[in-house]
Amino acid sequence: MNPHPFGLHRSLDPPGVLPQIARRLDATPRALENELAIAVRALSIDSASFRQLREAEVATGEPIRDQIARIVAERGKMQNPVTGSGGMLLGEVLAVGPRHPAADRVRAGDRVASLVSLTLTPLHLETIGDIHVETERVDVTGTAILFERTLFARLPDDFPEAVALAAFDVAGAPATVLRDARAGQTVLVIGTGKAGMLCLAAAREKVGKHGLVLAVEPSVRAADRARALGIADGVFAIDARDPVAMLAAVESATEGRMADLVVNVANASGTEAASVLCARDDGLVLFFGMATSFAAAALGAEGLAKPTQLMIGNGFVPGHDETALDLLRRHPALAAAFAALSGSPAR
Amino acid sequence: MNPHPFGLHRSLDPPGVLPQIARRLDATPRALENELAIAVRALSIDSASFRQLREAEVATGEPIRDQIARIVAERGKMQNPVTGSGGMLLGEVLAVGPRHPAADRVRAGDRVASLVSLTLTPLHLETIGDIHVETERVDVTGTAILFERTLFARLPDDFPEAVALAAFDVAGAPATVLRDARAGQTVLVIGTGKAGMLCLAAAREKVGKHGLVLAVEPSVRAADRARALGIADGVFAIDARDPVAMLAAVESATEGRMADLVVNVANASGTEAASVLCARDDGLVLFFGMATSFAAAALGAEGLAKPTQLMIGNGFVPGHDETALDLLRRHPALAAAFAALSGSPAR
Repeated sequence: MNPHPFGLHRSLDPPGVLPQIARRLDATPRALENELAIAVRALSIDSASFRQLREAEVATGEPIRDQIARIVAERGKMQNPVTGSGGMLLGEVLAVGPRHPAADRVRAGDRVASLVSLTLTPLHLETIGDIHVETERVDVTGTAILFERTLFARLPDDFPEAVALAAFDVAGAPATVLRDARAGQTVLVIGTGKAGMLCLAAAREKVGKHGLVLAVEPSVRAADRARALGIADGVFAIDARDPVAMLAAVESATEGRMADLVVNVANASGTEAASVLCARDDGLVLFFGMATSFAAAALGAEGLAKPTQLMIGNGFVPGHDETALDLLRRHPALAAAFAALSGSPAR
Repeated sequence: MNPHPFGLHRSLDPPGVLPQIARRLDATPRALENELAIAVRALSIDSASFRQLREAEVATGEPIRDQIARIVAERGKMQNPVTGSGGMLLGEVLAVGPRHPAADRVRAGDRVASLVSLTLTPLHLETIGDIHVETERVDVTGTAILFERTLFARLPDDFPEAVALAAFDVAGAPATVLRDARAGQTVLVIGTGKAGMLCLAAAREKVGKHGLVLAVEPSVRAADRARALGIADGVFAIDARDPVAMLAAVESATEGRMADLVVNVANASGTEAASVLCARDDGLVLFFGMATSFAAAALGAEGLAKPTQLMIGNGFVPGHDETALDLLRRHPALAAAFAALSGSPAR
């Protein structure tokens, strides 16, 4: 089998499936012609997985270190067999296959982070070092393989690693706002966590001074923090699970015109109906909150007789990693808030 | 609380929310001043829901009839608690509140179908009659309440009721294809049930003879039926849960160009990755299958580094009811297949 862009050639059990589905991958630590080999420095273990590993250590006495070594040796990837989840990795480029699409812009030694799950990344570990319980990070040495279509980002020199990783994690949402918002429009951002704050900055840049940027956020503290950025025209401390309150606030703020673009980055479920209600009939709702229910969004719009377009936020927009960092660079107050939320000093 | 246009006054648990979100509705079978009461004759159960009810019958021994009676008694609406989906209803106008917007053009006895989901429609059942497995229809007697903003359609004279009802139920998908497909494009329809067949006809009309219309369908019988319509350029008997097989088929049929528009109307879960994989990077995937997982679609696209736009199919496109009937009128073979599937003679 030729090396496949999605890595099908590395799936051993069953062979030829998507690597995420495979029970075992071929983790031979050598980059094929369209692959990229990473000298891995640290694994950032998914929260659910890390918690399970800790519980298993208590229950069975097998140290986390040994569990990780065993899982990776058995599966050729760090996919927790109980939770099914992975995490991401940090390291440096070791080798670039001559037919890898980034062959001309990446070189050995570049510091990178994978932007896809460890559940689909071939991994060969040599040593396992310190386990950092608070950050759910594990220092390792070893080699990972990225496929032709595996997303990764170069780590910037001007931000702490934790800030860059936090920005990469939510980079799809602001990149989509930059793509889809237009000058003079009204943009409503639901949720002002890290993704929401980046979306506010993206919206402000695109709608300009004649546009309107609104936000809703149930936490008074988070709403205050968003207000303090000085980016939004209005930040309402409202729970988006209350469509009736949402409708009233947005009708009032827009004089009944409602939002052209609604960006849902809420981490609570049950905000779909309000998202649809607050959009114009000819508007667009971008659902980026992972708690979104497909059925609630689709049937909600139908039930409200709203022909509004509903989009599933795609975590990948080309260049979204650099786009997110550039937003932080252009909005210092935002970068400071981001650093505080990521537990790192501001640059 | 005054009777609300969106029916908030009928939500009991929690009170005052949008009826679709409520766990339980007040299904008191009497029209308030801005409501419309329907004497219900039949329910058309959503495919994903009906499939789940059948699986539950096999697993637990509780007949579909009893499951429906229990759900409606508990919830005041026919919303499947597992899939979250509903369906639609057919009946005759029983009473029109004096302040309902259609008060002057609707009268008792008019044959109508609700065009919104049963998930937000107060329903009181008196009897449950035959279960029509082929058509996913259930004969009932009872009363449903339509709110001021609830869409409904009068039934046409030139189609059997079952055919019109089936067309209304899936009308959003072909109307969206007619809106979004362009001349010369490649459209891939996943699933060739009723929605899928209408989408094939809509796609054919929009892409024209220089475009390409493809379909995949796991059931050999349904694939044969779709092929016999003479609408599609290729119908593949493939299970869309197998992304590798899908990729191979669509790569081959499009000489690697892949689909500009993928319309997912599959009633099985697990088809998200293949839907994304078969679309062009600059393409659009319309998810109309109610078994779609938001997370699987969003994370699947990210994991595959596909910047493809992903849309949640909106069941409401203005005029979609007449649009669907017009498609049947323009494609007699489709109308005949539709009639056969709906258990009715062709007109």
